[in-house]
Amino acid sequence: MSETGTYTVTFQPGDIVCEGVPHGANLLRLALMEGVHINASCGGTGACGKCKVAVKGDFSGGKSAKLPRDDFDAGLRLACRVNVLGDLTVTIPEESRMGDSAALTHERRPGPGRALTPQDLEKLVAGWSVDPIVKKYTLTLEPPDAANNIDDLSRLRLGLKSQCGIEAASVDFHAVRELPDVLRQEDWRVTATVVETSRGPKVIQVAPGDQSAQDYSIVLDIGTTSIYAQLLDLASGETVAQASEYNGQISYGDDVISRIVYSQRKGGRKALQQAVVGTITQVVEQVLKKAGVDRCQISHMVAAGNTTMTHLLLDVNPKYIRIAPYVPAATFMPPVRADSLGLDVCGHIHMYTFPCVSSYVGGDIVSGVIGSGVFQTDKVTLYVDIGTNGEAVVGNREWLVATSCSAGPAFEGGGIKHGMRATRGAIEAVQVEPRTGEPHILTIGGKKPVGICGSGIIDAVAELLEAGILGQNGEFKEGAAGEWLRKNEDDQWEYVLVRGEYTAGGGDIVVTEPDIDNLMRAKGAIFAGVNTLLDSVGMDMDAVEQIYVAGGFGKYLQIDRAAAIGLFPEMDPDRFTFVGNGSLLGARLVSFSKDMLKSAEEVARMMTNIELSDNQRFMDEYMAALFFPHTEMKYFPRMEQILSKFS
Amino acid sequence: MSETGTYTVTFQPGDIVCEGVPHGANLLRLALMEGVHINASCGGTGACGKCKVAVKGDFSGGKSAKLPRDDFDAGLRLACRVNVLGDLTVTIPEESRMGDSAALTHERRPGPGRALTPQDLEKLVAGWSVDPIVKKYTLTLEPPDAANNIDDLSRLRLGLKSQCGIEAASVDFHAVRELPDVLRQEDWRVTATVVETSRGPKVIQVAPGDQSAQDYSIVLDIGTTSIYAQLLDLASGETVAQASEYNGQISYGDDVISRIVYSQRKGGRKALQQAVVGTITQVVEQVLKKAGVDRCQISHMVAAGNTTMTHLLLDVNPKYIRIAPYVPAATFMPPVRADSLGLDVCGHIHMYTFPCVSSYVGGDIVSGVIGSGVFQTDKVTLYVDIGTNGEAVVGNREWLVATSCSAGPAFEGGGIKHGMRATRGAIEAVQVEPRTGEPHILTIGGKKPVGICGSGIIDAVAELLEAGILGQNGEFKEGAAGEWLRKNEDDQWEYVLVRGEYTAGGGDIVVTEPDIDNLMRAKGAIFAGVNTLLDSVGMDMDAVEQIYVAGGFGKYLQIDRAAAIGLFPEMDPDRFTFVGNGSLLGARLVSFSKDMLKSAEEVARMMTNIELSDNQRFMDEYMAALFFPHTEMKYFPRMEQILSKFS
Repeated sequence: MSETGTYTVTFQPGDIVCEGVPHGANLLRLALMEGVHINASCGGTGACGKCKVAVKGDFSGGKSAKLPRDDFDAGLRLACRVNVLGDLTVTIPEESRMGDSAALTHERRPGPGRALTPQDLEKLVAGWSVDPIVKKYTLTLEPPDAANNIDDLSRLRLGLKSQCGIEAASVDFHAVRELPDVLRQEDWRVTATVVETSRGPKVIQVAPGDQSAQDYSIVLDIGTTSIYAQLLDLASGETVAQASEYNGQISYGDDVISRIVYSQRKGGRKALQQAVVGTITQVVEQVLKKAGVDRCQISHMVAAGNTTMTHLLLDVNPKYIRIAPYVPAATFMPPVRADSLGLDVCGHIHMYTFPCVSSYVGGDIVSGVIGSGVFQTDKVTLYVDIGTNGEAVVGNREWLVATSCSAGPAFEGGGIKHGMRATRGAIEAVQVEPRTGEPHILTIGGKKPVGICGSGIIDAVAELLEAGILGQNGEFKEGAAGEWLRKNEDDQWEYVLVRGEYTAGGGDIVVTEPDIDNLMRAKGAIFAGVNTLLDSVGMDMDAVEQIYVAGGFGKYLQIDRAAAIGLFPEMDPDRFTFVGNGSLLGARLVSFSKDMLKSAEEVARMMTNIELSDNQRFMDEYMAALFFPHTEMKYFPRMEQILSKFS
Repeated sequence: MSETGTYTVTFQPGDIVCEGVPHGANLLRLALMEGVHINASCGGTGACGKCKVAVKGDFSGGKSAKLPRDDFDAGLRLACRVNVLGDLTVTIPEESRMGDSAALTHERRPGPGRALTPQDLEKLVAGWSVDPIVKKYTLTLEPPDAANNIDDLSRLRLGLKSQCGIEAASVDFHAVRELPDVLRQEDWRVTATVVETSRGPKVIQVAPGDQSAQDYSIVLDIGTTSIYAQLLDLASGETVAQASEYNGQISYGDDVISRIVYSQRKGGRKALQQAVVGTITQVVEQVLKKAGVDRCQISHMVAAGNTTMTHLLLDVNPKYIRIAPYVPAATFMPPVRADSLGLDVCGHIHMYTFPCVSSYVGGDIVSGVIGSGVFQTDKVTLYVDIGTNGEAVVGNREWLVATSCSAGPAFEGGGIKHGMRATRGAIEAVQVEPRTGEPHILTIGGKKPVGICGSGIIDAVAELLEAGILGQNGEFKEGAAGEWLRKNEDDQWEYVLVRGEYTAGGGDIVVTEPDIDNLMRAKGAIFAGVNTLLDSVGMDMDAVEQIYVAGGFGKYLQIDRAAAIGLFPEMDPDRFTFVGNGSLLGARLVSFSKDMLKSAEEVARMMTNIELSDNQRFMDEYMAALFFPHTEMKYFPRMEQILSKFS
């Protein structure tokens, strides 16, 4: 073991050395991430038995019914079942290699960029401590007698003043209704939940006894396509559970524009509001159940969403967001009682929504700027949030300019025939054997493949391009991948990623030309949006000192794969940092720290906004980006070289 | 006409001169109020034809199908149908007199005390102007363009600052939801409703166009037995309509104690809350309908009620109000959204409830102290509110001590067999012919008698006592009133006040011994409460410089009749002022003036409280008062003399 508690794994042949491998790492996953090709057709479930390797060193697992006894006795193991427990040497036999050893001898791909651990993520932002805007205070009151029979509420307020230093607290009316019995239930010992408002402290709940140790919040990323929730323990500062679901509004339209259009129908706005609340209810139930936390121990909720999502969640009319000059109803929404939105939570819980900047630069991006620490950095930073709404911010702690564009849901598995969110069973990594066109895949959790998520579709398209199976125009090349490329019932070409025998559903999982077209438009919009933004401040990519990439496609996006399809230019991977779900990160911080809530408001006020609607420069950039990786190859020298052999 | 626009009416025989008679006054009513006895069996509807008088001077009316042509030609008119239009001389012929002329020749009764006109009432309190806590502001905003496309809410707030001088206004979330269309509906001209809260200005509604001229409030007196409502025009400062109903909670118990007991049953509190809200809904509908005012033009509501009524209206647990040491949940309730209480009003309307002092000195008495100006006066004042909860305050602008006791609903017509509220058709005045025991009555509005209200039952009992028909112990004297006194089916004595032929319902209207017993206990509680209060501050009635009497029994309470039954000691009537519904008066002021709202809070804080529960002095006083007028006759020399002839 190295000093840092990680291991070194060496792959043979090729003498490929991987350092810093964490304890328990999955060997097949490690190989794929490092660009070491090992056959794998079933997603890492042990079902296909193709990933046989000889392993020396300290490890666990590697057995499977699919591994013949002879092979096992000969020292072979299934890489998909092996967990690294020490320094290893792994020898890949010829039968497990993709084709001949070409894969092992071709040039190493660029590294994956910096993917942050949860601990790293917490450290992205400095100068805060767990000090939430909503806090619990436990106090013991003197019981009344004939000489001192002031009303219960006054007694509580006096106690808050003398015991907790909270002066002139207002008290939410709902906390008064049951106050008499609550005060007497545990012999005048109570826990008061107090929120710090811009207009002073306010008691929102009083509960019997000492309940200060049970203090939770729920933070939400309300995306156009996906909704993510985390349950936070405000007492310990830890994340207790998380969950995600597709936003129930999807059935009313893929992007914010179609949602706004639907909201203007009779009953449309209400339907959209109920749909998103329905999804939030699901994820809230999930995190509460996972953690075994009572819903009344939630003190507050924080939601980050784009401007349209924020309007629709709160049932605010978004009509003029899509009509020039693009005016939202409000950018700073007051906290709203969560139950008034239709959520099945205790009446005292308020929902805080992140402040927005403009119609198309919303609370999610403000949240991302907070969560990633961009608002504190001295370096000129590009922050890109890749979702259905692609958003980009450039700047540092002194200035911030933002823009957004509609990318469509492809990066979240939406609008993709077998697309899915980055959850268990999603194909998140793909390799294509260059000669035969055979796919090798890895699923999240090593489960039977269910579908393909954002990083999987990026991987697949990048590999198909590099293998010469897919043309730069997004069309398959007939006969380029043998049995893996076929025509479907609609007479369209499709590439078979997994055969039905290995999938959870029993049917083939494929990538179609329409899927690829959606991905092309998605990456084209992001690339064009970033370029237009940089151009608007007189900069180009070279002037950007660091790039933060956020998004719901999972944390496994490989920077070289993203560059291969033209989502980003080819750049030094060290300039990239993946922050995962940036808006959830910011929501966490704001939930933990009232100082961060204040910072979020400051960021929303200081950020300026470049409008891409009706922007000719953006339209030109977008049209030029509808090609893999781009019509202009100057930013893609590596791809130019690879693709040159197919032209 | 005199200089003050009133007239002089002289009754003959007896040369009884009434000055200050207002234009249009009803002649029969005037006679009864002045103690001039004229036969009247039907309540003043013209149906019995008994009140024939000869009238000289300027008047209108006086005809009836019941007035024979010969009598009319002889110059006779029915007093109940005559309206005074100038100075009059009225001669009462023998046939219209009660018995012989004894009634006209016996000593004049003491005057009625000072009954205030609406104008007088407004002048009771000094130093306020119409400046409500909730105000409407009309403003015109600049439409957005590409160069200035800030969100609608920020645009509104900037306009409020620059055009109305309202800085840092918070905005109720509900006003944001439809803001975009509201702003654009009348071309960026809007009316904002702004409430001044203790924590700064808050916009609660935004409406299209200029709606500042339509600005109303509803004030409510939430009594244990009756609920009164007034619709106020905040723009003009006038009362537009009023209405009243029995509190729907009556079916759950007559007094606050039985209501609290009921509230502790399963579902009881909710049932009580819904009952009072049901009644409020009725009176609100009535005033809106009468005035033709749209419910969305209401800016706020103000309710004054005792502590238990306030708790139950707001669905706050009143449990410990009735358990020593008698602690309410809260005395100062925050404003509450009226629709959250179940009222069918616009979402922005808040209900302000008067602050209470203690479990048994509630917002109604604070409101009465405000409305009657006691809080401003230098004179030592006794304020007595006679309702189901009898309340008394003594003090002036420097000190105030209050108490309350349960009187039961008799003064509001509750717990009385044919009792009713003081509305049209209620018998409000009664005379009894001393020799025959024949009753003569007057109804509110000169309508067919429907029942008997608080002042009517006081009158009836006083007259029956003075006529020797009722004993001081509250029992009828057999044979003392001929056919008018009879046994009912329950073998109880009852006195027939109106025969069925003259009533609206067709049945006899009677006064029963249980009715009289209820009245005795009611007046006994008030008398004992006042005496205990005065004793607690080392005073007696003689030290009181002025007495304000408030109550829902109507404004026609005759001070000598009240003294006759022992509700008050016999005193100079000039020391009495009738303020009518005192708590409604205070609610009006608070609705009109934010300064008065502040004063109400100050009054609630400065007032101290004498607890009568478990108070032995009060129990002794109460037992001594269960006699007509009292077991101790020293305060009742006139009654002692009258009653001496029956002993």
